[in-house]
Amino acid sequence: MLIIKINNNVSQTSIDRVRRKLSDEFGKYHEVSDGRGIVMIVTGYRSVANIGQFKRIEGVADVIHDFSGYYLAGRNYRSENTVVAVSGVCFGGIAIPVIAGPCGVESRTQIIETAEAVKKAGAVMLRGGAFKPRTSPYSFQGLGEEALEYLADARSRTGLPVVTEVIRAEDIGPVSRVADALQVGSRNAQNIPLLQALGRCNRPVILKRGMMMTLEEWLMAAEYILLSGNPNVILCERGIRTFESMTRNTLDIAAIPLLKQLSHLPVIVDPSHASGRRDIVPALCRAAIAAGADGMMIETHPQPNKALSDGEQAITHDTLKDLMPELKRFAETTGRSLW
Amino acid sequence: MLIIKINNNVSQTSIDRVRRKLSDEFGKYHEVSDGRGIVMIVTGYRSVANIGQFKRIEGVADVIHDFSGYYLAGRNYRSENTVVAVSGVCFGGIAIPVIAGPCGVESRTQIIETAEAVKKAGAVMLRGGAFKPRTSPYSFQGLGEEALEYLADARSRTGLPVVTEVIRAEDIGPVSRVADALQVGSRNAQNIPLLQALGRCNRPVILKRGMMMTLEEWLMAAEYILLSGNPNVILCERGIRTFESMTRNTLDIAAIPLLKQLSHLPVIVDPSHASGRRDIVPALCRAAIAAGADGMMIETHPQPNKALSDGEQAITHDTLKDLMPELKRFAETTGRSLW
Amino acid sequence: MLIIKINNNVSQTSIDRVRRKLSDEFGKYHEVSDGRGIVMIVTGYRSVANIGQFKRIEGVADVIHDFSGYYLAGRNYRSENTVVAVSGVCFGGIAIPVIAGPCGVESRTQIIETAEAVKKAGAVMLRGGAFKPRTSPYSFQGLGEEALEYLADARSRTGLPVVTEVIRAEDIGPVSRVADALQVGSRNAQNIPLLQALGRCNRPVILKRGMMMTLEEWLMAAEYILLSGNPNVILCERGIRTFESMTRNTLDIAAIPLLKQLSHLPVIVDPSHASGRRDIVPALCRAAIAAGADGMMIETHPQPNKALSDGEQAITHDTLKDLMPELKRFAETTGRSLW
Amino acid sequence: MLIIKINNNVSQTSIDRVRRKLSDEFGKYHEVSDGRGIVMIVTGYRSVANIGQFKRIEGVADVIHDFSGYYLAGRNYRSENTVVAVSGVCFGGIAIPVIAGPCGVESRTQIIETAEAVKKAGAVMLRGGAFKPRTSPYSFQGLGEEALEYLADARSRTGLPVVTEVIRAEDIGPVSRVADALQVGSRNAQNIPLLQALGRCNRPVILKRGMMMTLEEWLMAAEYILLSGNPNVILCERGIRTFESMTRNTLDIAAIPLLKQLSHLPVIVDPSHASGRRDIVPALCRAAIAAGADGMMIETHPQPNKALSDGEQAITHDTLKDLMPELKRFAETTGRSLW
Repeated sequence: MLIIKINNNVSQTSIDRVRRKLSDEFGKYHEVSDGRGIVMIVTGYRSVANIGQFKRIEGVADVIHDFSGYYLAGRNYRSENTVVAVSGVCFGGIAIPVIAGPCGVESRTQIIETAEAVKKAGAVMLRGGAFKPRTSPYSFQGLGEEALEYLADARSRTGLPVVTEVIRAEDIGPVSRVADALQVGSRNAQNIPLLQALGRCNRPVILKRGMMMTLEEWLMAAEYILLSGNPNVILCERGIRTFESMTRNTLDIAAIPLLKQLSHLPVIVDPSHASGRRDIVPALCRAAIAAGADGMMIETHPQPNKALSDGEQAITHDTLKDLMPELKRFAETTGRSLW
Repeated sequence: MLIIKINNNVSQTSIDRVRRKLSDEFGKYHEVSDGRGIVMIVTGYRSVANIGQFKRIEGVADVIHDFSGYYLAGRNYRSENTVVAVSGVCFGGIAIPVIAGPCGVESRTQIIETAEAVKKAGAVMLRGGAFKPRTSPYSFQGLGEEALEYLADARSRTGLPVVTEVIRAEDIGPVSRVADALQVGSRNAQNIPLLQALGRCNRPVILKRGMMMTLEEWLMAAEYILLSGNPNVILCERGIRTFESMTRNTLDIAAIPLLKQLSHLPVIVDPSHASGRRDIVPALCRAAIAAGADGMMIETHPQPNKALSDGEQAITHDTLKDLMPELKRFAETTGRSLW
Repeated sequence: MLIIKINNNVSQTSIDRVRRKLSDEFGKYHEVSDGRGIVMIVTGYRSVANIGQFKRIEGVADVIHDFSGYYLAGRNYRSENTVVAVSGVCFGGIAIPVIAGPCGVESRTQIIETAEAVKKAGAVMLRGGAFKPRTSPYSFQGLGEEALEYLADARSRTGLPVVTEVIRAEDIGPVSRVADALQVGSRNAQNIPLLQALGRCNRPVILKRGMMMTLEEWLMAAEYILLSGNPNVILCERGIRTFESMTRNTLDIAAIPLLKQLSHLPVIVDPSHASGRRDIVPALCRAAIAAGADGMMIETHPQPNKALSDGEQAITHDTLKDLMPELKRFAETTGRSLW
Repeated sequence: MLIIKINNNVSQTSIDRVRRKLSDEFGKYHEVSDGRGIVMIVTGYRSVANIGQFKRIEGVADVIHDFSGYYLAGRNYRSENTVVAVSGVCFGGIAIPVIAGPCGVESRTQIIETAEAVKKAGAVMLRGGAFKPRTSPYSFQGLGEEALEYLADARSRTGLPVVTEVIRAEDIGPVSRVADALQVGSRNAQNIPLLQALGRCNRPVILKRGMMMTLEEWLMAAEYILLSGNPNVILCERGIRTFESMTRNTLDIAAIPLLKQLSHLPVIVDPSHASGRRDIVPALCRAAIAAGADGMMIETHPQPNKALSDGEQAITHDTLKDLMPELKRFAETTGRSLW
């Protein structure tokens, strides 16, 4: 790929000249504005040899080649860490936010009770599924719109920002009225039209790893969102599928330091889906923070054994309360803190 | 799950009585009409103990329990094989249809030339991607609407029915104007809203296996389509992801006889994605037919080395021509024939 | 690697001159005699640039570089197929031998009864484990020496050659007194000292694929045997471990055509371990032969449900009898026959 | 399985009476002496119903059923943690030992230089391969006997206990003259005769996980050693094989807390083989300790880029030196310390 960067202070005429030149030479190309200027990206074999020619055009700040397939998600584009703010809670900085909540919103009482417990324990953001894509059509599919209303209530009572999953592009609008961040679930991690629609919205996106996705493929999925204009992407490792059957998935702990090398995006960890069993969730949380995670997303439920979905992986509110000071100590041992 | 079956000849009053009873007892339930009557499906723990109670209701032909999670896709629902007809080409019967075509539609000439070669070789259906969900946003994403027009042209010139992939619910309408069957790709195999939308359309669906899907999960994905009202689902095995790196995926040949046991739906095989390399495509085709496949979907391209996507796995038109009589012999050895 | 070939008719003096030269230049090197002459193999970075220098030495027939890591197992060493004869039964030629028998030898009666059924069905070789490496120390570990005696009896009554597994180098001698071929099981596929000891014995070796082995790693395991002097190696695909849990392993059907390209060694298939369930064994047999397998190894037991090990994957003698004519038809469809 | 426990103070006559009874009833059974008495283990279906009958025999302290398949390795046998002492270095207690050293012993200088750096950094045990089972026969296979001599030298100069791998039962004797602990590598994790021979030796055993072994299978492999009489087994997680290709293996971090639940044996972690890349070894070390590991085994080399094997995963001596105080801080955060 050929990358052409234009700074903010360049005149419209100069910008248009570059655009025309690119059109003439290559036909199609991608264009993204970030705070610092415009990035134009050309793909295809003809793009390889043109560095010199474009460097000389007035207004062009830089021309580079990138062969990673995920330029905007990569360290070549941005060497410093990106900090993604979700209604005041920052992911990717020194402080580590903990998100907690149930797998699915089941009732007004359940989500409010949980939100209060989450807040009291010291977590700073609430999760809860309204639209739940389940393997079986006969499993609980979420309360949908109703759940959004309950989430809004929990949010206004506790002040906790909320993250919930979207599974259709047309839900982004309605969900955004309630949610401070939008989640892409594992099954939709390569749902390209959904990624592109999220790239055009103004909410931060938590992009879960597909259960069969390599790190490179995951960064390319993030690239779809970034390329569509939304720079606020948080990567969420949630385990990959392997032959080991004692855990629901295998937490790829190495993904954390590797992603931090390859990408400037924040990396958080979901130990609940990664394990599928609450008894080891605290150990996985400690490990994730020790490995450099920028945040945690933990499932908790007032009565895990009565949960309508994934109860076996939700910790109780008491466990969450005990876990938080422990995570604080581990964060501090890595030279960081909890948000 | 509690399954209640009502035959076609039952009066509306009796049907409504059952419906009311189910509503009163369980709240929500699923309802599907097939040619033979109505199937009502209740989930949840309370559904377990109610067989006797419903058996006695007038008009109820049968009440059964099913614990598979994919009742409509399973042999419990239908013991005989389902034959899915795609504009006159039948999948699931004695005769085995071969679908062939390029990964992506690249130009009018390319698809027409290919369609003619496909027809001449004896294959009976044309494949070709218009909307291509690619791992990288910088890869060729298909020609979109333009490709649909070219496919329509190829279809009308050769008379071959056409299958092409849909990646958004809103494309189902426009694509259906050209395509005789709609394909769900591996990355969308658990895109629930898409599956449900396809369940409400009147085109047969070719549902590819997700690259990390168990057979049970795949049948549950099919169940989403069936439960939404579309009985015409063809399963397409296309390889799963493993540690072996010499092939793009690992063709799960055992999936064929297993699915034929578990399900009444036709099972076809895509040896091109399963291997990612054209040199072993013929061997995989032979194996698939020997294992009991109900159809093949093979990638072919006029000039594989110049293909804009997945060229390394496309066979030449000449190879296809040589392969067809071979497949015929293998089909006959299994007591079947080529369509 | 640098490969130096010397023909059979070269004088001892010339051979010694080459040896001295190699010693002086590289220190250690490998030497293997095959029917046609001597092959000397030098590894290490210094070996790369020396083709010219060695080509000029008298008696040297050929000097080549090979970078595959499995030179002797590869097509570079031998372009024609190797035919491995096991007491008159040939693997790797036009005719395809079928091996059958129980997982483990359980009694004299059981193995004799099975041997007679195997012979009657038309299979040409008997399998049966005497030393069984089991996952749990509390599972049936085989009858050991006693089983060897029973195998000898079954062999002399039916005339069928016998293959059985060895799990320790020191057992090769005693086992060879009974067995016509020695099997390396999946768990020992990278037991290097065992492979090397088998390389020094005079019995053909059936080398099963390790359940986590890539094709390249498998060929390198075969290379250990070949390099130690035993050219009679048969590769046996028996499934690899994946996330799919409905089968014990996943039969990698693509391995068959790939190995036939990469290697001159015979490739046979064990559908019993590959599936772990007898209901799909016939379908996998048909597929394996269609894909080009050079032989089959099938588990059969007089009363599968009473077997002391792996009964769920053994077919009955009746199923075997029905299967053989079917395999014959498939073999003929590929232009081959059953042995 | 039926487990019969006899305390130490029971008379020989009583013991013999139980033995006779077991022989009469079941034929074969297993017997292990531990410090506290004798454990007799009977397998097979007939063992299920006999608890009452054996409880009444004089001298029998306890009779229990166990269905795990790894009784001696499990918490049912021993609820407190087992502490394995290797020449004074204890694994499984509060303090966490760090083992470090090169993949393979390459020369006297290399191993002595490394041993001194390892000691200076604060690690307490030296690793170094003498017999190296490599995938390819053309790779460096270790210096063998020569390496043992160098290890002995490094040991006597630094006082560090030494662990090295054995790949053949007959090497256990000679290697034990030098090594304080014996390692079973990943490829031999189900080499049953080797495990049994190690069960009969008097050296602690570090048992690496096979690269496709489930946790249950691993514990059953440990059971082979324990059942043969050696109670000193340390489990070493070293990554499993998955589809992710950016790391050599995938470190299964969840295995640590799970094994600590299932088993009383110490669990250590090898981050070098788990990742195959030195850049993330420190992060994996931190995570392993946070997850509850009882020890670390880290590869370090004076000049990693010149290593004869696995150099890309060895950290430099300087990195090791910097890492140790960091690990100390993490150990303390978990309420433990470094040994």
